[in-house]
Amino acid sequence: MNAITLKNNQLALSNVTKPVLKANHVLVKINQAGICSTDLEIVKGYVPNFDGVLGHEFVGTVDEIGAGISQDILEKRVTATINVGCNSCAVCAAEGAEHCPDRTVIGIINRDGIFAEYVSVPQENLVFIPADVPDELAVFTEPLAAALRIREQLCVPPSQSVAVVGPGRLGMLVGWALSLSGNEVVMLGRREQSLDLAKKWGLSTGLTADIADNDFDFVVETTGNEAGLAHALRITRPHGTIVLKSTYAGPANVNLTKLVVAELNVIGSRCGPFEPAVRLLTTPQAQKILDMIDGRYALSDGLAAIEKAAEPGVRKILLKP
Amino acid sequence: MNAITLKNNQLALSNVTKPVLKANHVLVKINQAGICSTDLEIVKGYVPNFDGVLGHEFVGTVDEIGAGISQDILEKRVTATINVGCNSCAVCAAEGAEHCPDRTVIGIINRDGIFAEYVSVPQENLVFIPADVPDELAVFTEPLAAALRIREQLCVPPSQSVAVVGPGRLGMLVGWALSLSGNEVVMLGRREQSLDLAKKWGLSTGLTADIADNDFDFVVETTGNEAGLAHALRITRPHGTIVLKSTYAGPANVNLTKLVVAELNVIGSRCGPFEPAVRLLTTPQAQKILDMIDGRYALSDGLAAIEKAAEPGVRKILLKP
Repeated sequence: MNAITLKNNQLALSNVTKPVLKANHVLVKINQAGICSTDLEIVKGYVPNFDGVLGHEFVGTVDEIGAGISQDILEKRVTATINVGCNSCAVCAAEGAEHCPDRTVIGIINRDGIFAEYVSVPQENLVFIPADVPDELAVFTEPLAAALRIREQLCVPPSQSVAVVGPGRLGMLVGWALSLSGNEVVMLGRREQSLDLAKKWGLSTGLTADIADNDFDFVVETTGNEAGLAHALRITRPHGTIVLKSTYAGPANVNLTKLVVAELNVIGSRCGPFEPAVRLLTTPQAQKILDMIDGRYALSDGLAAIEKAAEPGVRKILLKP
Repeated sequence: MNAITLKNNQLALSNVTKPVLKANHVLVKINQAGICSTDLEIVKGYVPNFDGVLGHEFVGTVDEIGAGISQDILEKRVTATINVGCNSCAVCAAEGAEHCPDRTVIGIINRDGIFAEYVSVPQENLVFIPADVPDELAVFTEPLAAALRIREQLCVPPSQSVAVVGPGRLGMLVGWALSLSGNEVVMLGRREQSLDLAKKWGLSTGLTADIADNDFDFVVETTGNEAGLAHALRITRPHGTIVLKSTYAGPANVNLTKLVVAELNVIGSRCGPFEPAVRLLTTPQAQKILDMIDGRYALSDGLAAIEKAAEPGVRKILLKP
């Protein structure tokens, strides 16, 4: 089958063997895949020695099932959580598969991803997609869950002022998700043009450099770059909270004096809950998420799609096998 | 009067004018002063354009009082909280003088410190020292309060494993304070010799480099250097907490990937509550804090005292006018 693979830091459209079905696994035929910033970071070398099929945002159809799995799920539309824990260690029990030291992660750590025609996933990772959520919306389940993760970790009182640094593919979902409970959310970008979509969605906007020091209670950093983090530190008020939603590839050179002196709370945030994300995708207002689609490519054009996704200002690029 | 001053980055023993008493202020005759790492950082340039008398850890005797202050406090032994807010802004009201943007800080920001014969402090900053706390112990009130600040900010369940990176002048107080409610506290140092005092105090100890990854629930970083922070990130378990107790002079070059991927909580921590610190200093077990005194100098020998305090492994150096 066709797949976008990375091996020895070489990205390629490859012909790979269709996955062999294992016990407790399900073979899913990919309907749509989304390219995210983590994929682009992996291409740049964020995961040393990555070797396999890339990609982890998808919606598909159950095509084959392993032994002992009910036939009822055949032909159902699904996506899947991406972390696969060992299910036997203390970390799996206490903190979940997301933090298992021996975990595999679909398309990220030691497990083939979904830029392919088929993927094999453990049955327990499956999340079913309701009929009223079309494929092009369902493909946003994983990043929307990541946005919702913030509310799983922290109380964000609706009266707190919220800024999201970076109006990109993750930032927009974070801003929208945090606005749903009444918070005023200000999307911050480096250029006016980057804020057009936020304005269309009715979110407040601002140029990051124009924001006064200590202006926000709660700041979400989604850019994954040092400058974004420096701004987040600068604009957060004493005793305020910063959520880091993007991994930083390599060491960051950052002045942490403000963190200590203003007694800030900085919290890392990664994968989130899929079921709440799917519930939100069934609401009428979620239709606006389709605005984020900046390109649709065939899987066979995957290399061009990844190149497009890496252009500044581009949000979601979809891949269809 | 004699004072240790810093002007144009030049440390000196100077003859300065005795402070003029202002309304709502009290003139305190210094009995003992302590040298802390922040003083050494200021000497190295941490506070740009610092110009005045250094020092903020002290115990003294009320010598003169401003208009409208009760005579009853004359001759009382006191120390003082170090932040002086404007008392009229929203930050003072909501977060306290410690975070007022226009605050002065004794010996740190735009206010003369206590490496002198006298200091003038606002009456509302005074904290009285009970008769059973000798001067050489009372001088530890400010750093012990800073250690207790951690329990003002966070719940540290007694069953959580706690590591303190850096068995220095602040680290020892942090380790002792956190051990008082039943937590096992492991003091971590770079050299065996640095752990002798921790062992004498009955705290667990370890060499930082020997600690396995993800080994602690709760880690306090007290070294203020990049290597200490890198270790703290390394040894904290997924979903664990890191408290930064030391300011970092200048930018830190640090890999923040673990913070995001393991969803750590990093919180800055600064000045703490004085009254609880004084209460602890009246307990028999607090006598051990006197073990931290590594030298006693006359104020007139203050330059030598500061040099001594900057030597590796040296903890508290006292200055007596």
